[in-house]
Amino acid sequence: MLEKIHHLGYAVEDLEAAARFYERSFGVAPGGAETVGEQGIVASMFRVGDSLIELMQPTHPDTPVGRFLARRGEGFHHVAFEVADIEVVLAELKKNGVDLVDEEPRLGAGGTRTAFVHPKGAFGVLTELVELSDRGR
Amino acid sequence: MLEKIHHLGYAVEDLEAAARFYERSFGVAPGGAETVGEQGIVASMFRVGDSLIELMQPTHPDTPVGRFLARRGEGFHHVAFEVADIEVVLAELKKNGVDLVDEEPRLGAGGTRTAFVHPKGAFGVLTELVELSDRGR
Repeated sequence: MLEKIHHLGYAVEDLEAAARFYERSFGVAPGGAETVGEQGIVASMFRVGDSLIELMQPTHPDTPVGRFLARRGEGFHHVAFEVADIEVVLAELKKNGVDLVDEEPRLGAGGTRTAFVHPKGAFGVLTELVELSDRGR
Repeated sequence: MLEKIHHLGYAVEDLEAAARFYERSFGVAPGGAETVGEQGIVASMFRVGDSLIELMQPTHPDTPVGRFLARRGEGFHHVAFEVADIEVVLAELKKNGVDLVDEEPRLGAGGTRTAFVHPKGAFGVLTELVELSDRGR
């Protein structure tokens, strides 16, 4: 059911410094910083093979990523798996009593549908499911 | 220089329970548990697209993964990027003054050569570099 690692989300204090580090040390090309108001982050992405790395800086300390930074410090925040049919996967997770953040898919960037599994339900890893829109396939 | 996400390493308290969770909830097929004495872990892997997820349970609390669990709890432990030439990447990191765990590559499973970048040097993410052997390519 898991097609691939769609992206990894890293929480950082300073998006520009983090993007520069990946660019200089690994020769990747992070995209321009984009504010995602709904999530309270400014984000920049770069491609590694078939996956993306999303660098995320909170717009404010009182946001999910801001609170994460205060609690855990910089580092890995979440993994997102691409799935073919998010409803099927969510149904399976519910059947197994897995702790979910989203019981139903919500609309993500570019027409994707996404849902988060709670870290408590996935052995400490905040796990996102992403179903691409037909356009994004 | 980063070819792909080679694998993600997750630290877990109970390898069998974690493997069962991924198998039941996501339909993946974790391989048999293997003890990696040198690293002080018992590990099981499963494939997601072009990458692997490695579930790691420490063999003893006084191991790197055991201490990680005591300090941080279960969850994401490291990301490994496949690189074409590990010497070139290490040279670049050293030139940029990045904090490394391994100044020189060490031999990994299946003839791979690996080196870790210290989380302090990579915005909180323990980052492994993996160069495949000719056989593994």
